[in-house]
Amino acid sequence: MAVAFSTLAGGVTAAQGFRAAGISAGIKASKALDLALIVSDRPAAAAAVFTTNRAQAAPVLVSREHLTRSSGAARAIIVNSGCANACTGDEGLAVAREMAEETARIVGCPAEQVLVASTGVIGVALPPEKIRAGLPIAFGALSAGGGGDAARAIMTTDPFPKEAAAKLPLGGKEIAIGGIAKGSGMIEPQMATMLGFVTTDASIPVPLLQRALREAVDDTFNAITVDGECSTNDCVMILANGASGAIVDEDQSTYASFVGALTAVCRELALGIVRGGEGATKLVAVNVTGAATAAEARTCAKAIANSPLVKTAIHGGDPNWGRLIAVAGRAGVQFELSRAAVTIGTIVLFEDGRPHDENAPQAAEYLKGKDLTVSVGLGAGSASSTVWTCDLSAEYVRINADYRT
Amino acid sequence: MAVAFSTLAGGVTAAQGFRAAGISAGIKASKALDLALIVSDRPAAAAAVFTTNRAQAAPVLVSREHLTRSSGAARAIIVNSGCANACTGDEGLAVAREMAEETARIVGCPAEQVLVASTGVIGVALPPEKIRAGLPIAFGALSAGGGGDAARAIMTTDPFPKEAAAKLPLGGKEIAIGGIAKGSGMIEPQMATMLGFVTTDASIPVPLLQRALREAVDDTFNAITVDGECSTNDCVMILANGASGAIVDEDQSTYASFVGALTAVCRELALGIVRGGEGATKLVAVNVTGAATAAEARTCAKAIANSPLVKTAIHGGDPNWGRLIAVAGRAGVQFELSRAAVTIGTIVLFEDGRPHDENAPQAAEYLKGKDLTVSVGLGAGSASSTVWTCDLSAEYVRINADYRT
Repeated sequence: MAVAFSTLAGGVTAAQGFRAAGISAGIKASKALDLALIVSDRPAAAAAVFTTNRAQAAPVLVSREHLTRSSGAARAIIVNSGCANACTGDEGLAVAREMAEETARIVGCPAEQVLVASTGVIGVALPPEKIRAGLPIAFGALSAGGGGDAARAIMTTDPFPKEAAAKLPLGGKEIAIGGIAKGSGMIEPQMATMLGFVTTDASIPVPLLQRALREAVDDTFNAITVDGECSTNDCVMILANGASGAIVDEDQSTYASFVGALTAVCRELALGIVRGGEGATKLVAVNVTGAATAAEARTCAKAIANSPLVKTAIHGGDPNWGRLIAVAGRAGVQFELSRAAVTIGTIVLFEDGRPHDENAPQAAEYLKGKDLTVSVGLGAGSASSTVWTCDLSAEYVRINADYRT
Repeated sequence: MAVAFSTLAGGVTAAQGFRAAGISAGIKASKALDLALIVSDRPAAAAAVFTTNRAQAAPVLVSREHLTRSSGAARAIIVNSGCANACTGDEGLAVAREMAEETARIVGCPAEQVLVASTGVIGVALPPEKIRAGLPIAFGALSAGGGGDAARAIMTTDPFPKEAAAKLPLGGKEIAIGGIAKGSGMIEPQMATMLGFVTTDASIPVPLLQRALREAVDDTFNAITVDGECSTNDCVMILANGASGAIVDEDQSTYASFVGALTAVCRELALGIVRGGEGATKLVAVNVTGAATAAEARTCAKAIANSPLVKTAIHGGDPNWGRLIAVAGRAGVQFELSRAAVTIGTIVLFEDGRPHDENAPQAAEYLKGKDLTVSVGLGAGSASSTVWTCDLSAEYVRINADYRT
């Protein structure tokens, strides 16, 4: 489906009526930005998808509760990096609640209209006094150009901030959709992602906004992996404040346009996470075709995308297609070796049960690139799926062996 | 169950009536040993477990077929390293068959009494002329002390050979059980393992031998992982030639003694594989308790044992217990955060939903060791499982980025 939208600067403050800030509250020892505040100038329709991890962080519990209590209305999102506030017991829950309450007091709205998120080390207490001291500073720094600072304030091991935005005509008006995201390790979202925050000035009912977010997330944030790890804090939140006056309703054309642009924004943010994956040097689209079902295609693509042997071979520029076949064979999906195929870029290395090693030098040349596609045909049907991953480098090990020291 | 057995030297030739050899047939460019032959001086009862990978290598297909045709009788096992003979089409199948036929001709037995195994790079043709030339040399080198050479001849990236043997009194006689194994990467056997070859001079009917092998493998080879990858060639084979005159039957005491000693031999071989895992510097027993079912305990233990974030933290000596909780939460098993626990060695770091970070320095000290235990309590029941893994080092990446170059 072709959607008429164009990209835009401004990230999470690209849409009308949103301001944001990112400041240093001293949570990170490095004094880097670590507190982000996103505020809508009016109550916005709000929707979110959260981690499926059974160890849910305190801010996830509080945000879920607030969305229920407010029936999907929100004025602000408060986010800290440097501490995940996960596995922190009742004390952690109290801090997450206080973050929302203090934000509500300063912004001037009910506490349940504030959503909360945290990211960083698990199991460490989040100091409430630093949040208390930082909040007024963040509020004072709010601006319609503050999306970039907010993007930086939510980073942990991310090598660069992730922002994306798009504008599109809708019902005779123009709307913007913009967002920021963070994430570099512990990335294989299941129904959600690491942190992602999206805003739009479209007007859209809460149930439809939730549906649009789920649709957009499924082939973007939920189709990426860095290391197969689903975190305790993953979430993507979206606020729609209606400031553009444009209305998205169940009418096919406005909803389809909105979801198309939202998906594009989410994809850019999600691919940014993979490009900036811990130790990553290459972005790899893993394309599985010939699957019996779409679910099996996704399962197999995820298995390949998480295979340390595939990821190290790609890191080394080695067109070791046997490792792709070995993963497909163990992925628990229907697979017919005599009809299987492996293509690296557009170079066929294995087809109908036979190697084409004469093409290996050409494939090795292709693998020197930074933006790669590998395709595996399962020979079992006609369904397909694409998942994005990165290579596995010694730098990933270095980052994660030394994360807390 | 305490079993009265004692360890023994000699590996796969520890049992009476078995000879073995390991020679260089020029399959490896390095001229290292690459062809192993194991021969019983009389037809032996034979059993095996094979990879569940749907891309099964030619030698796996041939060995399965031979076990069926011979109703579980075998005289010899021929094994090459340096080439997996997997994904090699009909030509590869013909080479695997020829390996068995040539071995049978030299040993003097029907072709179906020869089992075949290969290990090395997937998708590369195995040169039949090298096997043909090497076989008579291997046959000439057979000796009752040849287990060590055979252990070396089946190595690929293994940093050291894996041998184990045990002797035990049985029905007034004494039997020996001994074996060799190989494997370093692409290791997460599912119903089987990388290559393992076990011999015994006990007399045991084929169905009982198969049952004993499955029981022994379940908590040994099937409870290890290096990188979560199940190969196309995995197998464990056992030959029982009855040379000791001791009989194992369904009678409780002889069968239980036999399985106990067989399990001990398999465990020593399996832990050798993990200790020699690609890039490994530490052996880690992952112990999951408090699970709702034994299957969930195993699932969760495997998820932890394959987690790159857990494995890198252990490599770095970081008692980052939050990563263990995060994996338990995403493993798809019943899990109750408020009753969960993490213990590193015997040091409690998280219990009943609360961190005990005061113990982190002591845990960091413990993690400097080479032989570690980490335990996670799920707070959901009373079932448990132990899985063995190794740490993830930059050396793993180096080995696998450059495997074929």
